[in-house]
Amino acid sequence: MHLDRSGLEILDVRECRALLARAVVGRVVFTEHALPAVQPVNFIVHADDVVIRTARASRLATAARQTVVAFEIDEFDATARTGWSVVIIGHARLVTASEEIAALEDLPLRSWMPGHRDQYIRIRPELVSGRRIPVDA
Amino acid sequence: MHLDRSGLEILDVRECRALLARAVVGRVVFTEHALPAVQPVNFIVHADDVVIRTARASRLATAARQTVVAFEIDEFDATARTGWSVVIIGHARLVTASEEIAALEDLPLRSWMPGHRDQYIRIRPELVSGRRIPVDA
Repeated sequence: MHLDRSGLEILDVRECRALLARAVVGRVVFTEHALPAVQPVNFIVHADDVVIRTARASRLATAARQTVVAFEIDEFDATARTGWSVVIIGHARLVTASEEIAALEDLPLRSWMPGHRDQYIRIRPELVSGRRIPVDA
Repeated sequence: MHLDRSGLEILDVRECRALLARAVVGRVVFTEHALPAVQPVNFIVHADDVVIRTARASRLATAARQTVVAFEIDEFDATARTGWSVVIIGHARLVTASEEIAALEDLPLRSWMPGHRDQYIRIRPELVSGRRIPVDA
């Protein structure tokens, strides 16, 4: 077990990717009007990218125009006071090529949000990091 | 029930504050080396502020030097495909006055992180917003 300087267990990239593949909700972190912004979304991992469905005129669609975002997932147990989190940082992009959209439409990804959500965003994990609170912390 | 333009229920400030008072884990969203950054923390609400304990040399302590951050809590149900989130935006500050530190030490707030965490950060909610996915979405 490798610990960082604050005593948290460092999760390796393989473990981070396995946690990402199992999670269904994460949080997109971006900047909006020069302020930090965050929005939870349901997602799926496809070809190593985080894939999200949103509406064409949504804040996410606006925020994801070729920008660098963070994406976070976590799980905590308040009784045991433990848990883990994984953060990826990478470029987000709107999917515009029709063949690529057709391929994504085959995925089992339906937005939990109401209304028509036919805009796909992909986030490419360029930095991947994860931490776990050791159970005996 | 008030809906926003994407069909999500808008939670009023009173409801957002009630959800904040009950939650134990949230995510601080900030900027680090010009990139979006996010870190989950356990917290408590005191005098309307979100209060966090961290270590003196932590990234959070560095990030919270008189800057504007976002702080997010949420809860989702993957089976029902519903859930809610609350986001506050406001100035974060390191608590340095000894009387104020003494008052915060009386709170039932112990960091889940390992090691010595004697640095308090307060986030003042200047903007408070919340959304819920309607159950029949």
